[in-house]
Amino acid sequence: MRRKEFNVDDMEACEAFLRECSHGVLAFAGEGGWPKAVPLNYVYTEGNVYFHGSKKGEKMSGLAKDARSEFVVYEAHAFIPSYFTDPYLACPATQFFRSVRMAGTVEQVEEPAEKARALAALLASMQPEGGHAPIDHEDPKYVSSLRGVAVLRLDIAEMTGKFKFGQNMSAPRREKLIEGLRDRNLPGDEETIGYIREAAPKQS
Amino acid sequence: MRRKEFNVDDMEACEAFLRECSHGVLAFAGEGGWPKAVPLNYVYTEGNVYFHGSKKGEKMSGLAKDARSEFVVYEAHAFIPSYFTDPYLACPATQFFRSVRMAGTVEQVEEPAEKARALAALLASMQPEGGHAPIDHEDPKYVSSLRGVAVLRLDIAEMTGKFKFGQNMSAPRREKLIEGLRDRNLPGDEETIGYIREAAPKQS
Repeated sequence: MRRKEFNVDDMEACEAFLRECSHGVLAFAGEGGWPKAVPLNYVYTEGNVYFHGSKKGEKMSGLAKDARSEFVVYEAHAFIPSYFTDPYLACPATQFFRSVRMAGTVEQVEEPAEKARALAALLASMQPEGGHAPIDHEDPKYVSSLRGVAVLRLDIAEMTGKFKFGQNMSAPRREKLIEGLRDRNLPGDEETIGYIREAAPKQS
Repeated sequence: MRRKEFNVDDMEACEAFLRECSHGVLAFAGEGGWPKAVPLNYVYTEGNVYFHGSKKGEKMSGLAKDARSEFVVYEAHAFIPSYFTDPYLACPATQFFRSVRMAGTVEQVEEPAEKARALAALLASMQPEGGHAPIDHEDPKYVSSLRGVAVLRLDIAEMTGKFKFGQNMSAPRREKLIEGLRDRNLPGDEETIGYIREAAPKQS
């Protein structure tokens, strides 16, 4: 069950998350309809997700036959051990995380200017410090490389964010958990406390 | 193209990677055959991958109709900026990573003892310090929780590792890259240098 209480209606929060991350997994149907799960770097720009890759291979042949796909970006935050809230049972152990899933169709980008723009955005997200000639489809030094690489665009039909930070818990249980994180103080725990506070239902 | 030079034939290296990580993405066919990409915590034990989750929802209904799936575990290591090896072109920019993809079928585990064993292994991987009563299908305190949770087992038909650490590069280029990582010295860069050395083709 995709528990509704973790769903994020805030499109801006989903988009901010997508801009923060750099890789996800693309699911599509491969040969004979077998599901494929392919990890990819991506960039989210102009409301689309772009990938790049080889012009040949399972990704290209699978998507050429059936363009339907889902792309998911996931980040694990604090793991919550059971003993933060229960001295006996293991059941309360859980993983806090953020994820955004995007269902849509994947098209190959053929137009050189869009290709160059997508690759430039992809690189800018990974290498913001620059240190290379601008990726320009009219720069003769880039022409053959641009021709040789495939750029794919996911046209997003549906976007679902799921941020799990204990928003289903009672307030006293949540405070106990925050106390546990504060005592543990692993890298990321302080950040998680911020997410928990943000996600907590507003009290009237 | 799944470039062969990055494939890992070493089953032990793949298994070690699977034991090191804790989450991946499961691809399967959802309603109407739409591909789904669902992030999940997992444990790799006794040669199988186990997940747990709710007994209802898209994962259960999709897999009940078509058990075929692929599960991928991915870890991003150093991002290699283009200027480590090229002062002009952006093209050499790349991501070093490790990934293992497993194709197989997913079955729901019904047998209480196997369920308890899988959940115990899952929790032991996330919460190795313990701090809870052993997950035992005969412990009355666990019986109803165990009944209420779904445990899924991926029966792996094919496992493919892909570890990308510049093993396709010439030795001088590889040394340049290592020099770049050493100068940059971000967290993880030293570890990546170890992986690069390990992956480099053995010289005769």
